[in-house]
Amino acid sequence: MKELMERIENDGHVLGEGVLKVDSFVTHQVDPVLMEKIGKQFAACFADRQITKVVTIEASGIAPALFAAQHLGVPMVFARKSKSLTMNEELLTADVYSFTKQTTSTISISRKFLSAEDNVLIVDDFLANGQAAKGLIELCRQAGAHVDGIGIVIEKSFQDGRQLLEEMGLKVVSLARIDSLSDGKVTFLKEDA
Amino acid sequence: MKELMERIENDGHVLGEGVLKVDSFVTHQVDPVLMEKIGKQFAACFADRQITKVVTIEASGIAPALFAAQHLGVPMVFARKSKSLTMNEELLTADVYSFTKQTTSTISISRKFLSAEDNVLIVDDFLANGQAAKGLIELCRQAGAHVDGIGIVIEKSFQDGRQLLEEMGLKVVSLARIDSLSDGKVTFLKEDA
Repeated sequence: MKELMERIENDGHVLGEGVLKVDSFVTHQVDPVLMEKIGKQFAACFADRQITKVVTIEASGIAPALFAAQHLGVPMVFARKSKSLTMNEELLTADVYSFTKQTTSTISISRKFLSAEDNVLIVDDFLANGQAAKGLIELCRQAGAHVDGIGIVIEKSFQDGRQLLEEMGLKVVSLARIDSLSDGKVTFLKEDA
Repeated sequence: MKELMERIENDGHVLGEGVLKVDSFVTHQVDPVLMEKIGKQFAACFADRQITKVVTIEASGIAPALFAAQHLGVPMVFARKSKSLTMNEELLTADVYSFTKQTTSTISISRKFLSAEDNVLIVDDFLANGQAAKGLIELCRQAGAHVDGIGIVIEKSFQDGRQLLEEMGLKVVSLARIDSLSDGKVTFLKEDA
């Protein structure tokens, strides 16, 4: 997605060790105009797939997932990273290791919001090692729901997340695929250029 | 907002001790169609106020804030409840006590996303004791930003959040105002009926 890649080049910041900071338009401050285009693009890619639900994980997955759900005409569900007192019914849970935060967290979705009738599109802001997506897939499988595909805003193609998901037989749509963050510079995969 | 009140009556669940669960369309599963109408309504209420930024707090404030920002044509910023490794620059921080979770958490926004030029609309899903809104106001004040008003999806009018915010001189727009959750039943304030 050309507009997204341009925005990453203009407003993204490469920190050390493969970290790309896009906090001015994706992960902290959010540009609703760009984000709606992103959601629309996901919806277009899965338009013929009879998606019944878009599933993501709090917090920065919510914006792209919400617009994807809006344009697919289905509800969006976000997995929580911690339980709250008002989530006292049966939960689907999975462990997710975050390489960024170097912690394992338990993510959860109420069982009542996913069922064997669901055909799920998973949406997230980043794909790196694929651990968050793997956790969301695990929640869907526990509910007997079918995962139809994965929509990713920014893929770090130099990490093995896509391979992990494709080996599970899943269709992965990434709107910006980054080949390298070396020398403080963003280089996109040739196929997107 | 009639459609929201009807939805609360149909799909909300009153738990004990003043807790209203709206996890099937607001706080866990999100209905993008209703949520866009909510955002549009906030935008209409603050259309003439030259809002420059919509500020909320993760996670369930993000959806209504995002649509409000979209319809106002401004960015949305969500405060985080914990720091991540990629948020290493100067942060605005404030403490927020949650009566639901019975914990105090530190919320933060990067200083670079709020400035003295900003005229802020704060949006959140619930207003009860006003502690989350108070924390967001504190972040804005630290940045020298002006808080123009507060947009709330569901107000528990039997708690003192609105009074706290109005005593600060702030305009509070709540789309559903709940007078009581006694006897397992939702009763709205007369003015909304």
